Amino acid sequence: MSGHELFQTPWNFLGLPQDVSDPARARGWLLPVPYESTTSYGAGTRDGPAAILAASRQVELYDREFGNEPAMEYGVHTTHPLNLVHRSPEAMIQSVEEAVAELLSGKQRPEVLGVLGGEHSISAGVVRGLARVQNPDSLVVVHVDAHADLREEYEGSPYSHACAAKRILEVCPIFQIGIRNFSSGEAAFMSRSRKVQTIFSEEAGDSRGGFLKDLARFVKKKQVFLTVDLDGLDPSIMPAVGTPEPGGISWERMLEIARTVAGHAARVPVFDVVELAPIPGLRAPDFLAAKLVYKLFSYTLLGSGKTKN
Amino acid sequence: MSGHELFQTPWNFLGLPQDVSDPARARGWLLPVPYESTTSYGAGTRDGPAAILAASRQVELYDREFGNEPAMEYGVHTTHPLNLVHRSPEAMIQSVEEAVAELLSGKQRPEVLGVLGGEHSISAGVVRGLARVQNPDSLVVVHVDAHADLREEYEGSPYSHACAAKRILEVCPIFQIGIRNFSSGEAAFMSRSRKVQTIFSEEAGDSRGGFLKDLARFVKKKQVFLTVDLDGLDPSIMPAVGTPEPGGISWERMLEIARTVAGHAARVPVFDVVELAPIPGLRAPDFLAAKLVYKLFSYTLLGSGKTKN
Amino acid sequence: MSGHELFQTPWNFLGLPQDVSDPARARGWLLPVPYESTTSYGAGTRDGPAAILAASRQVELYDREFGNEPAMEYGVHTTHPLNLVHRSPEAMIQSVEEAVAELLSGKQRPEVLGVLGGEHSISAGVVRGLARVQNPDSLVVVHVDAHADLREEYEGSPYSHACAAKRILEVCPIFQIGIRNFSSGEAAFMSRSRKVQTIFSEEAGDSRGGFLKDLARFVKKKQVFLTVDLDGLDPSIMPAVGTPEPGGISWERMLEIARTVAGHAARVPVFDVVELAPIPGLRAPDFLAAKLVYKLFSYTLLGSGKTKN
Amino acid sequence: MSGHELFQTPWNFLGLPQDVSDPARARGWLLPVPYESTTSYGAGTRDGPAAILAASRQVELYDREFGNEPAMEYGVHTTHPLNLVHRSPEAMIQSVEEAVAELLSGKQRPEVLGVLGGEHSISAGVVRGLARVQNPDSLVVVHVDAHADLREEYEGSPYSHACAAKRILEVCPIFQIGIRNFSSGEAAFMSRSRKVQTIFSEEAGDSRGGFLKDLARFVKKKQVFLTVDLDGLDPSIMPAVGTPEPGGISWERMLEIARTVAGHAARVPVFDVVELAPIPGLRAPDFLAAKLVYKLFSYTLLGSGKTKN
Amino acid sequence: MSGHELFQTPWNFLGLPQDVSDPARARGWLLPVPYESTTSYGAGTRDGPAAILAASRQVELYDREFGNEPAMEYGVHTTHPLNLVHRSPEAMIQSVEEAVAELLSGKQRPEVLGVLGGEHSISAGVVRGLARVQNPDSLVVVHVDAHADLREEYEGSPYSHACAAKRILEVCPIFQIGIRNFSSGEAAFMSRSRKVQTIFSEEAGDSRGGFLKDLARFVKKKQVFLTVDLDGLDPSIMPAVGTPEPGGISWERMLEIARTVAGHAARVPVFDVVELAPIPGLRAPDFLAAKLVYKLFSYTLLGSGKTKN
Amino acid sequence: MSGHELFQTPWNFLGLPQDVSDPARARGWLLPVPYESTTSYGAGTRDGPAAILAASRQVELYDREFGNEPAMEYGVHTTHPLNLVHRSPEAMIQSVEEAVAELLSGKQRPEVLGVLGGEHSISAGVVRGLARVQNPDSLVVVHVDAHADLREEYEGSPYSHACAAKRILEVCPIFQIGIRNFSSGEAAFMSRSRKVQTIFSEEAGDSRGGFLKDLARFVKKKQVFLTVDLDGLDPSIMPAVGTPEPGGISWERMLEIARTVAGHAARVPVFDVVELAPIPGLRAPDFLAAKLVYKLFSYTLLGSGKTKN
Repeated sequence: MSGHELFQTPWNFLGLPQDVSDPARARGWLLPVPYESTTSYGAGTRDGPAAILAASRQVELYDREFGNEPAMEYGVHTTHPLNLVHRSPEAMIQSVEEAVAELLSGKQRPEVLGVLGGEHSISAGVVRGLARVQNPDSLVVVHVDAHADLREEYEGSPYSHACAAKRILEVCPIFQIGIRNFSSGEAAFMSRSRKVQTIFSEEAGDSRGGFLKDLARFVKKKQVFLTVDLDGLDPSIMPAVGTPEPGGISWERMLEIARTVAGHAARVPVFDVVELAPIPGLRAPDFLAAKLVYKLFSYTLLGSGKTKN
Repeated sequence: MSGHELFQTPWNFLGLPQDVSDPARARGWLLPVPYESTTSYGAGTRDGPAAILAASRQVELYDREFGNEPAMEYGVHTTHPLNLVHRSPEAMIQSVEEAVAELLSGKQRPEVLGVLGGEHSISAGVVRGLARVQNPDSLVVVHVDAHADLREEYEGSPYSHACAAKRILEVCPIFQIGIRNFSSGEAAFMSRSRKVQTIFSEEAGDSRGGFLKDLARFVKKKQVFLTVDLDGLDPSIMPAVGTPEPGGISWERMLEIARTVAGHAARVPVFDVVELAPIPGLRAPDFLAAKLVYKLFSYTLLGSGKTKN
Repeated sequence: MSGHELFQTPWNFLGLPQDVSDPARARGWLLPVPYESTTSYGAGTRDGPAAILAASRQVELYDREFGNEPAMEYGVHTTHPLNLVHRSPEAMIQSVEEAVAELLSGKQRPEVLGVLGGEHSISAGVVRGLARVQNPDSLVVVHVDAHADLREEYEGSPYSHACAAKRILEVCPIFQIGIRNFSSGEAAFMSRSRKVQTIFSEEAGDSRGGFLKDLARFVKKKQVFLTVDLDGLDPSIMPAVGTPEPGGISWERMLEIARTVAGHAARVPVFDVVELAPIPGLRAPDFLAAKLVYKLFSYTLLGSGKTKN
Repeated sequence: MSGHELFQTPWNFLGLPQDVSDPARARGWLLPVPYESTTSYGAGTRDGPAAILAASRQVELYDREFGNEPAMEYGVHTTHPLNLVHRSPEAMIQSVEEAVAELLSGKQRPEVLGVLGGEHSISAGVVRGLARVQNPDSLVVVHVDAHADLREEYEGSPYSHACAAKRILEVCPIFQIGIRNFSSGEAAFMSRSRKVQTIFSEEAGDSRGGFLKDLARFVKKKQVFLTVDLDGLDPSIMPAVGTPEPGGISWERMLEIARTVAGHAARVPVFDVVELAPIPGLRAPDFLAAKLVYKLFSYTLLGSGKTKN
Repeated sequence: MSGHELFQTPWNFLGLPQDVSDPARARGWLLPVPYESTTSYGAGTRDGPAAILAASRQVELYDREFGNEPAMEYGVHTTHPLNLVHRSPEAMIQSVEEAVAELLSGKQRPEVLGVLGGEHSISAGVVRGLARVQNPDSLVVVHVDAHADLREEYEGSPYSHACAAKRILEVCPIFQIGIRNFSSGEAAFMSRSRKVQTIFSEEAGDSRGGFLKDLARFVKKKQVFLTVDLDGLDPSIMPAVGTPEPGGISWERMLEIARTVAGHAARVPVFDVVELAPIPGLRAPDFLAAKLVYKLFSYTLLGSGKTKN
Repeated sequence: MSGHELFQTPWNFLGLPQDVSDPARARGWLLPVPYESTTSYGAGTRDGPAAILAASRQVELYDREFGNEPAMEYGVHTTHPLNLVHRSPEAMIQSVEEAVAELLSGKQRPEVLGVLGGEHSISAGVVRGLARVQNPDSLVVVHVDAHADLREEYEGSPYSHACAAKRILEVCPIFQIGIRNFSSGEAAFMSRSRKVQTIFSEEAGDSRGGFLKDLARFVKKKQVFLTVDLDGLDPSIMPAVGTPEPGGISWERMLEIARTVAGHAARVPVFDVVELAPIPGLRAPDFLAAKLVYKLFSYTLLGSGKTKN
């Protein structure tokens, strides 16, 4: 069908024109995973990806930090959402692993793959999929969250959202930022594990951001998977999560973290943004999440904006 | 991208597989028009089309009335939404007219075009677009609504939602069902106009449905445009409209009306379903609207189910 | 702590006084199962049991049908909610089975056990638990629902909410009422299976209710498990479900079904009421569900009210 | 300020023009009483009057039953809302009594006074105020409700919403319609009191409406105060109440009741419509309440529409 | 009607007594313009003025910054809302222009006119109306917003909310504060236009607020129209806007801006506060907007509070 | 009933195991008072206690500030909610007084009693109950709030939420923090009363928190009742209150206040947390309130965490 003037752009991230969102040309791909199964309280992460896509269509393409419309330059392709598998959390995680590995190793493939949750448990599948196409020794994970997610098992499942970081650790080291809620067992584990580095929320919110140097060192020359559980942010700007813990990260700090990762890593082949549980009638959190995903694509594909200078 | 097992179907009406929703094969097309501009009270019809599409993906394809999965047989193609024009209501209506005419006269074109509102004013554009590709003398309109919509002008505009039927009348006769709210002026007009036939809500809700015979006569051998303002239905099943008037049409009666139209008309080349203003958190109205659109496609493309027997 | 005048009754079903809700005396027990895992659209059945308990505290104890306060006579004990198991749907269903069997065979045990969902998949566990303490040959299930739930597997799991009736059939025959949505495969299965009897929604809504005689025959001299998926009711009175299908059962008909079952069965040792997904701000559905649970206890423990006469 | 074309009508019931709503000319007056204090569950009746006024501005003035715009004929004046008194429920009820008596006996005074609640307890003040200006022997009350409201005292107060009818009985006899929830004590009282006549919900919903003749007899030659607790209506059309009991009165039946009262009473000097607890985002109940208030003014000021014929 | 003790104050801004809100005495007037037509995403600005008025009645009259009840001193008259014109956005803007010019030049007229939106497009009418009664050469506009609103045309209309500042520029220079979202075209325009001065959000949020000196210079000896699009504020305190952009202005900074304008301008004859789209159930944004309007009246009528000292 | 693995913990604060929440062992007790009667705007504080309890079950027991799970050490017993008395606000306050006195002087009694509102008026009863078991001369009250609550009477009642602090003053001195809204009369009273010390919101938010030293002096060697009206916090983190005033206290500052009180007082036998009016669908405020209550128990029972060092 012709008629560009009459009809809207296709239903994709940022509402990009057909050619800019074509998988053959787009350097960034976005995979929605509307999965929710093991959440305890609050519900609705299954509606997260659709809400982010809807909100993204209102995000202005122009980005003052870059002085142009970055997405028009690099292009973003939005894939069909992953099918849900409800045989078991493990089966779903395997499906995510398979999809990520398939997308990253296809003939046509993205430079950066963004994944939209859904609950945080999917990140275990993301890191495993990545490890199938990438030497695991070169991998590290940067993890923004309010919770340590370091339980070995939760409510009977090792693939619960509360075990996401523990599953990631089976693949590679992790650098956690914004943590402010965890169990005795997790506290003990954090203090003895050499593969976990934790920046608690007070440190993460420190006005000078001293931890950013440690973060830069951690990602240096590494292939980084950046996983953002939105409850790492402060509930004042991100109430639409299952357990909104007071004392979280600000929008500006979140961007500094992303810039640091993108500016010092060898590459960021994958990131995910998870746990948005949209609140009917309240669009600000969806909009913020959409802007964050756009920023993450821009930083990881174009290099960090401001820190370059 | 391959991987039918891994990924979901495209984002279209009913979540149909790619091939069944291909414009080259689909006998029904669906055009979303998320337009809202002249509404007085309550807001949100701009979100109607997206809500209907989202809900439609949960509708079971199998229809017991037909004994199979009708949509898999005839196919439905969902077009990109119409772009909004805010220069004036008139300009927007012209855009609808143009789009409808273009879609109905394209080389690839639908047998039945469904249009999703948005506010009711778009129906003026729909009927004009239809009249450009169809002999106006053969046209009639069947109009389900709580309001007569027969004002010449409202809040300064002849293209207000409150004037939809008046604009339609400039093209062809109209048969109104479920009417229960109108002005003195409209009352006078109804009683003197020979081109309007009105079934008030008490008659429309009558248990024997005597008016259905009149309706059958009205559409006989005609090309029919069926326009459904969802506020014609009873607020108990359709609260998600701007002015939910008590005393409306039931779900069963709505289907009888549709079956009667489809069973006796020469053809129903176009229908629209308008004025859904989704209520955050309340999905029943969206779901009902999605089922209604599916039923309308089935009746108009396959002939009315039950009345055939 | 003393002070009956100062403090409220404990937090249990109907807000009954301590002694009337004591397990040692209460003839009815209520087990909340706030489980949700495999739902596709709409979310929130995990919040169903808490909402029903909260609403029940506003239900008047006096019941005009019985001419007294039935619950004060027979007593209802509310157990702690079942713990969630997220290893797999199968593991959760096993947990339900175990809990039901344990409660029904304990030294202290209820005459009638009510179960509150949560999603419908739990009913598979309920019937299995019942079959462990009751001769399966004497068992039948009466199933009120909008959906047939007869899929062998859904989204990879045989323990999905969409397979509830299929799992039940592995234990005993089933009588379905209010069905109005199902797949081709389920249609085929229904027409060939001798263990399923289906009353479609049109028949269920018929003003004379002719099917009630068939129902009476079906349950005669049987041990009956009555499972009520609230989406069997009409969305006008029960919008708070995942897929609210138009054309459902009325409140009065629902009570007639329950009276018929209780009036003709040998006994109704277990019932469940599932799939309430509370809508924030809308209390009518919670309240209706609470009244229904109360009515079910009264009919099953005291014999059907009106039909006795 | 001039400029009728530029500016909207004043903020009053139905959005009537200044002259039609002038107290010197308006035959109907409307008194908002946004009082809420003793409600148990659900909250928000204090927002009821404002929601009804807002919705009323969308109600079409033309009424087909009367064949014209009745309100333009008789006029409605909207007074300032009553001030709240929180010293005690009794003090508030006294304030209502005083206001009603003052309004009804002023030099300028309405033929019919409508009162908007707020919680039902205010009706005790309304009837007392009326009795101060009207011979109590000529008074009767018609009471539409789901609850008998015949408790002597509730939660420590004889001026609770649950005691409204008991307080009314201290002034004059009462005819209750739609009752479906009450306590043992109330049941006993109803059966022994000669001043209460009760039409339970099953009778009220009976298709022939046999009770309407009894109602006509009851009001014959009497001064009637008609008090409508909106929870008397069915929750499918009126979910916005504190305790929405299934099995209520339909919109059509509600109008028949009002027509019967207005058609046979000597006069209806006062009515009230109480207990609307608006649900954010859901406008249908507000709209229905506004239409009902309009109908009540028309029936009581112009005589019952249809029954006249 | 007498009875000050019995009845509430009239329905006006702050719930002021009749005499204090009398147009003959009130130095500030408030004009509600509940217009919404061209918004793209999110809806509801038409409900903004009513929500601000409702919230204002809860605002305490005493203001510690002034040490008294400022509104009781200067008085505020609330006009009837402007009638809506839906012929075209242009026609509506003309209506705003006419109303503003009429109010400002009437025999009775305000010293300061506040205008409540509705969508931002109305500001074009406000500035034009002002320019009809005031020498345009003495005029400047101060504009708080997240968006530059400098498009020549948007969705087919030069009178879209996205063109507000561009239309203003046709009348006089503009000083923009808090901007953080704009298009390539707007970026180019900003950098070349000499009539636009832009304080981006990072600068606007700077802890020392260096830009306030530039602002003071800009308004010096000028007649200032201050236009506040509420999305200029941070979404944490103002989520109730169409596109809530992270990184906005704080409450304290907003007051500093207002104080600076009022403290250095020759006069501020008009201000507007636009784009509140109330979220059902969430009153904090309405309340904040009401307080802001009160502060703006106080600063502009009494001189800036704190900066005086 | 046994079966710890199968069933959840009882419905109490934090979801503590039976033994840890046993009144015989728990050093902290929590009394819910779901009372709401005199609120003016916004409603729903009656639902506050239930929402806090529900949210508390998701709060992690481990607290990094203490390095362990404090509640498992000291134990918290949740009492049944106080019964409501609606005879008059005074009668309800007496009931609170009686309950508090009874609980604090029982044979089994808590070291620290937490009270959950409900509206702020209950604090008058709390302080009176405390004064019956404790020498009033040793008592002082620390009061976090946006409002001074120093009116002698409001809407006819001296027991309104707007008079809470005035009633407290009749018992002992008060130290108010975060105040930013009050009347002329209250301003005058504050400046002349020697028993009130006020820290306005600007001072309370000051980055160095100089007032904390004054606070420490105020509570030194005193028995302290800490009363927290949640509207003292900033609306960005606590929108779920009746009148959300911009410019409030941050989460971190709130904790510093609590630590200062607990660290310098002789003892804190009682605290309350009042005025949560839950917003349907928005759980962040409930969650924050639950965390605050937990922190208050920990500080008051274990000594202030950080300040000890």
